[in-house]
Amino acid sequence: MNNNIITTRVNYVLIGFGALFFAALVDATEKGWEVGTRMLPNPAGSSEELRKSIAATPQPDVKRSKMFLQNTDATDWENLKALRAASRGKAALQLAENLKVAVERQDINDVTVRRITPQEIDPKFKDAVFLYLHGGAYVFGGGDASIGEAAIIANSAKISVISVDYRMPPTSPFPAAVDDVVTVYRHLLKTVPAQAIAIGGTSAGGGLALSAVHKFISLGLPTPSAIYAGTPWADLTKTGDSLFTNEGIDRVLVTYDGSLGAAAQLYAAGHDMKDPLISPVYGDFVGFPPTYFVTGTRDMFLSDTSRVHRKLRTAGIVAELNVYEGMSHAGYAFNLRSPESKQVYSELRNFLVAHLE
Amino acid sequence: MNNNIITTRVNYVLIGFGALFFAALVDATEKGWEVGTRMLPNPAGSSEELRKSIAATPQPDVKRSKMFLQNTDATDWENLKALRAASRGKAALQLAENLKVAVERQDINDVTVRRITPQEIDPKFKDAVFLYLHGGAYVFGGGDASIGEAAIIANSAKISVISVDYRMPPTSPFPAAVDDVVTVYRHLLKTVPAQAIAIGGTSAGGGLALSAVHKFISLGLPTPSAIYAGTPWADLTKTGDSLFTNEGIDRVLVTYDGSLGAAAQLYAAGHDMKDPLISPVYGDFVGFPPTYFVTGTRDMFLSDTSRVHRKLRTAGIVAELNVYEGMSHAGYAFNLRSPESKQVYSELRNFLVAHLE
Repeated sequence: MNNNIITTRVNYVLIGFGALFFAALVDATEKGWEVGTRMLPNPAGSSEELRKSIAATPQPDVKRSKMFLQNTDATDWENLKALRAASRGKAALQLAENLKVAVERQDINDVTVRRITPQEIDPKFKDAVFLYLHGGAYVFGGGDASIGEAAIIANSAKISVISVDYRMPPTSPFPAAVDDVVTVYRHLLKTVPAQAIAIGGTSAGGGLALSAVHKFISLGLPTPSAIYAGTPWADLTKTGDSLFTNEGIDRVLVTYDGSLGAAAQLYAAGHDMKDPLISPVYGDFVGFPPTYFVTGTRDMFLSDTSRVHRKLRTAGIVAELNVYEGMSHAGYAFNLRSPESKQVYSELRNFLVAHLE
Repeated sequence: MNNNIITTRVNYVLIGFGALFFAALVDATEKGWEVGTRMLPNPAGSSEELRKSIAATPQPDVKRSKMFLQNTDATDWENLKALRAASRGKAALQLAENLKVAVERQDINDVTVRRITPQEIDPKFKDAVFLYLHGGAYVFGGGDASIGEAAIIANSAKISVISVDYRMPPTSPFPAAVDDVVTVYRHLLKTVPAQAIAIGGTSAGGGLALSAVHKFISLGLPTPSAIYAGTPWADLTKTGDSLFTNEGIDRVLVTYDGSLGAAAQLYAAGHDMKDPLISPVYGDFVGFPPTYFVTGTRDMFLSDTSRVHRKLRTAGIVAELNVYEGMSHAGYAFNLRSPESKQVYSELRNFLVAHLE
């Protein structure tokens, strides 16, 4: 190869790297980049079960998803909640039956909870309680649907679970959910030491767990001994980097601009969305208990999850972050037979064993 | 709002969710999705320093980057290596001077190493050694450039570092690099117990550290007591999900199809790229020491990093995964004044304190 070609190539490469690392401030704006199209193959590094599930899923449709729940009024929300509650509640009851957990509905100072008792309780957990908070964007997932993941955790960790059917909008926006968790937690503390209580959930449930612990600390209550933050909705504002990088890639959330943004507005109901009791990532994490995080490479809440993890680590708190290959938001909770799901719940059990007394 | 509109909306939403969760196997192929364009703002959740750095960077140019190092012959590679070595070597020497570390070049059984000694050594580390392996896609980063991150670690962790100037292609492809690390490690073990040795590096250096530990185990050598796997190139094949999700988003790597893929071919030199000594993610991680991982939401090696982390965790190994908001591949090593970079190295120090004896 002649020297001209080499020199040209080398210059070209140097220009490329020079531009990258030593760019002058010619473009020091905040406008961002328009990222082009790309081919996204089925993730070869995921389990066969996850790959099959992705292959069976239509590609996420960003345009259509952006139309979800726009200009929805209170009656619309209530109707949609009722419709979803029916199908998801039925599925959750079926799951509880399959897992042979007992479900008992109770009221604790006007807050509805469901006690979920597995067939076998680990002797280590005979006096322990997992305080479970369901997901559903702070709007959905209440009623019998709140049994779903709670039953999985009761069964896999062999622990008693109390799932809080906290109040939700449109009738009861923020701070009703946080208040209901505080009510149940205060009640629990009368008979169970904080050292034997874990708290957590997935998505809004993970976010609410983090917000609730902020609230417990501000009230001077002892903190639970472990948090399960499954892909927590830790920032209701449109901030997390992965909201953008994974738009149209996350097959569950798809885009912030449809139902997520609408639900955030409905829940915050005019309060500052950066209030740590709404978006817990903005809080101070000193004094937090050990926390177990789960997310995926395709999860739009990868950033919400990893930003809170970083805050805990810089505060010196024990925190475990796990990122699953090719997984969209909360995929482990939908695809229970996948190895990924089994890992999530068996490692949650190990985490509880390590941190509950 | 009238009932027709509600019903239509609700049906629409149900169709959407039904399609998502209960799709029939109409599209059960592996062809993947073409993901459309999206706006990617400067990440508001990153530090001001990182945001400024991103704002000052031209948008990654995928088309141009795909042309890097295609059809490059041995002479081209050598010329390019020499050019880069000159500029990066000079920068690394300057960094060592700024950090006031002493650098001493030595040969260990024909392998060149540089001993990097900080001004102050932590009493806990008086007999300890950090075996550092430089990055540079298994082609670049040798010579004086191999001092760079090694000097940062020596200074921030207050530990003696030996940086291995391992042989590289085009003259010495795989397994020369692994063999050189083994040579140095065997020599070290004569005077330093494995309990006082850590190994690691960034990018190819992180991947090589993981491969080397696979090799140590197969040779029956004791393992080092801690690994630093900074965004490790753990899979040289085009497999990791984030190679695709973050193409054109990672401002350092940009795309696999340019220099990365070319370097992978050059290094593997016809060997099976799924050999765990080339792509360590494919190995068995039983017996591995505690490992500290770093990556970012924009890192094309997010998947390489998190896949190895998952393998370690399922093998029951202590492993810490950290994902930095808005960070591209190895951004912490380029932007030393950013809070992200300070966190990476101060937590690496804490990790070494916890796991070295």
